[in-house]
Amino acid sequence: MASSHRAGVPAFDAAELDELKHKLVTACHILDREGITDGYGHVAARVPGTNVFLTIANVSPGCATIERLIMQDFDGKYLGGAETPPNEWPIHACVFKARPDVMSVAHTHSVWSTLFSVLPIKLKPLHHYGKFLSADGPPVYQGVGLVRTVERGEDLARTLGKGPVVLMRSHGDTVVGDSIEQVVQRTVRLAKLGELAHLALLHGAPRYLSTEELETFSADERFPARGWEYYVSRLKNRD
Amino acid sequence: MASSHRAGVPAFDAAELDELKHKLVTACHILDREGITDGYGHVAARVPGTNVFLTIANVSPGCATIERLIMQDFDGKYLGGAETPPNEWPIHACVFKARPDVMSVAHTHSVWSTLFSVLPIKLKPLHHYGKFLSADGPPVYQGVGLVRTVERGEDLARTLGKGPVVLMRSHGDTVVGDSIEQVVQRTVRLAKLGELAHLALLHGAPRYLSTEELETFSADERFPARGWEYYVSRLKNRD
Amino acid sequence: MASSHRAGVPAFDAAELDELKHKLVTACHILDREGITDGYGHVAARVPGTNVFLTIANVSPGCATIERLIMQDFDGKYLGGAETPPNEWPIHACVFKARPDVMSVAHTHSVWSTLFSVLPIKLKPLHHYGKFLSADGPPVYQGVGLVRTVERGEDLARTLGKGPVVLMRSHGDTVVGDSIEQVVQRTVRLAKLGELAHLALLHGAPRYLSTEELETFSADERFPARGWEYYVSRLKNRD
Amino acid sequence: MASSHRAGVPAFDAAELDELKHKLVTACHILDREGITDGYGHVAARVPGTNVFLTIANVSPGCATIERLIMQDFDGKYLGGAETPPNEWPIHACVFKARPDVMSVAHTHSVWSTLFSVLPIKLKPLHHYGKFLSADGPPVYQGVGLVRTVERGEDLARTLGKGPVVLMRSHGDTVVGDSIEQVVQRTVRLAKLGELAHLALLHGAPRYLSTEELETFSADERFPARGWEYYVSRLKNRD
Repeated sequence: MASSHRAGVPAFDAAELDELKHKLVTACHILDREGITDGYGHVAARVPGTNVFLTIANVSPGCATIERLIMQDFDGKYLGGAETPPNEWPIHACVFKARPDVMSVAHTHSVWSTLFSVLPIKLKPLHHYGKFLSADGPPVYQGVGLVRTVERGEDLARTLGKGPVVLMRSHGDTVVGDSIEQVVQRTVRLAKLGELAHLALLHGAPRYLSTEELETFSADERFPARGWEYYVSRLKNRD
Repeated sequence: MASSHRAGVPAFDAAELDELKHKLVTACHILDREGITDGYGHVAARVPGTNVFLTIANVSPGCATIERLIMQDFDGKYLGGAETPPNEWPIHACVFKARPDVMSVAHTHSVWSTLFSVLPIKLKPLHHYGKFLSADGPPVYQGVGLVRTVERGEDLARTLGKGPVVLMRSHGDTVVGDSIEQVVQRTVRLAKLGELAHLALLHGAPRYLSTEELETFSADERFPARGWEYYVSRLKNRD
Repeated sequence: MASSHRAGVPAFDAAELDELKHKLVTACHILDREGITDGYGHVAARVPGTNVFLTIANVSPGCATIERLIMQDFDGKYLGGAETPPNEWPIHACVFKARPDVMSVAHTHSVWSTLFSVLPIKLKPLHHYGKFLSADGPPVYQGVGLVRTVERGEDLARTLGKGPVVLMRSHGDTVVGDSIEQVVQRTVRLAKLGELAHLALLHGAPRYLSTEELETFSADERFPARGWEYYVSRLKNRD
Repeated sequence: MASSHRAGVPAFDAAELDELKHKLVTACHILDREGITDGYGHVAARVPGTNVFLTIANVSPGCATIERLIMQDFDGKYLGGAETPPNEWPIHACVFKARPDVMSVAHTHSVWSTLFSVLPIKLKPLHHYGKFLSADGPPVYQGVGLVRTVERGEDLARTLGKGPVVLMRSHGDTVVGDSIEQVVQRTVRLAKLGELAHLALLHGAPRYLSTEELETFSADERFPARGWEYYVSRLKNRD
């Protein structure tokens, strides 16, 4: 497959994409290092100001490299990079299309998201790490089958709605945000929230955070630079 | 013990077995690295087109080397390599004999398989990773004692039947497949499925995947090359 | 911000603070290595004989360095070092002010403390590691929002009272002691106690330690030099 | 303290003790690496044919070295090596005295032993790893306080009786065997059995192994050389 160029979109090899590509690979390694991914899943980033995105090309997040990134548009058209689109590219394409505010998307098979996806109990925030969620927790996409079609991708995006997270039944989750850093932090924290909710629910009814309480904590939110620095520092142990 | 040669079977030291041997050792290391084995268990591979198999010779999977492999036929006759057959060689011999479709067998003391082997609850798939299982989950071999005799091995193979997995009461599991890679992926995923089912069952009745839903996911199945690449990449942390 | 000097207080760069600074950084690394902190939290140390303290300057405990320490007084006034006070400096300032006996304070988002902070069950000691606690376990600060104001800090200190620990609802804990070593040991042991209590409570009513029994164990207490040596030895695995 | 010599007992520095000393240090490192010890606990070995033993001198098992071993007799008299006896030397002295068949003793704060020590449920074997235990599981020493006196040590030895294991309420366990290797393997397996029993009990009544079934498995028991080799191989990750 030859790389094709599109007006108004940087070429896959353009130097202006270097930083975004490095950050995307780092994000994949972080989710692997933090035990969220297990050989499957992918992070994607919108090329700013365009209708195209970068993601990993059918490789495990833990094995991602710059050479194994791919650029596609929202119809899945190949625009450069490694030539094997990920099975579930419609997750990213359909979410980016439906949500112009979203700059990055992560899909993982997080154990904790999967757990709550098959329970009749919602994953509601018990720690202030959940301040990016609503008090009644994320919705669950009930679709069956990998999200390999645009139809399934659009269903998923509809269930996500305007929120930050959608759990996927018997599968995992999809998390969105306005930067790669935010999506990574949210994905890690969603897992921590899921584990905590699991532990607490074993002892009866825990005391959840109300909408008002979450707002009090949200007033303190900052750009997730500290978390990112920390996650990056832990990557040295991978080598 | 002298290595004995058999018509139609490559000698233990034949170069044509090199790749299979390396893959077998790697498979053992992967199951150790992924926390499935704990000093015990073994992976075996049929020598293609023959009635003989290779496995590890009474050594921990995590310590396996090419020099510690052994070749036996389905009656347990020694055909080459290290001279101490594993205690439970009849697991492999009897399963390979009963199942000509099977090219590789893994036996481990997986915590999650052992857990469901002693419960009155079946280990049924809650994640699409379970698409290689039937909706009602694997059978449990109720035999007591290590599988050191052909009689026990044949019992085990009977309980396995035509399926991919048999749990073993108070012991662990045996997993089969059409390649070493598939057996490793299935063994790892069986453990993940067991952990997830354990977690979910603590909260009441989870929503399992039906036969039809598993088939929808199965339509997407691929050769497990991506998982294998990932597991191999994680072996560097062992050294 | 220029470093300001105060009568009777060593300058931030004074050699006499070197040992304290190194110990503080080590304490942060230990809490990270032992899995208590997760990118957030901080340890602080009173400068002996003064009303000022050292802590980490808005950096993850796992990334702490000598260069990223800050010195503040109990009103939060900057006295030297890195120039970005941690969000929740009032935790340390208000506790040091209210408790002249306290030489060190640690605040973490420990999973186990957070768990008990949202349950209607108290975290009571089941292991002799809990001999620094009272038999009915630590109180829970119910305040909502990060402790970024003196008002919240004073509330927290009031809930702590004269005890060694206060859990913080949907947040974590604050632990105090008469040395950095003791605070680190208490924080690690509090997490172990929480995990053990969690496990035991799943099986019905465990047999707790009574006040008298805790006193019997306390009679054997020593300075935590052995624990500190051990934790330090485990830091080599971080590099 | 000067090392004192005793008739019929090799001097602490005698070359004939080198192998035993190295094995003892390795045993300590293994229990640390396997996550059983946490800075506390100790392994001891009887000097064959004598009434004296070697153990670690008030140091964490994970930090043990040849230089930090101590030799004592069964009354606690110092006979050589590092000069700070462990707090709980009477555990070893009293067990060795009461049990001439015992060549090695390990005391740890294993989470799983501590868990069952505070529950009204016995830790009974669910995996064939428990074949060294009786079907109704080990007794629990109910004594309070560290075992720093001969009186407490004798109580503990009485509760142990002729068995391989005694759990210690709110404290941990003591495990004995006819070699250092066996004690290490038993200690590790006891932890695995405890974890498995914990998991299974959460789902209702598991199917335990009967006395007869344990005997069937015991018939297959071997010297634990394979486990020891495996545990040693995992120590390289400590450095």
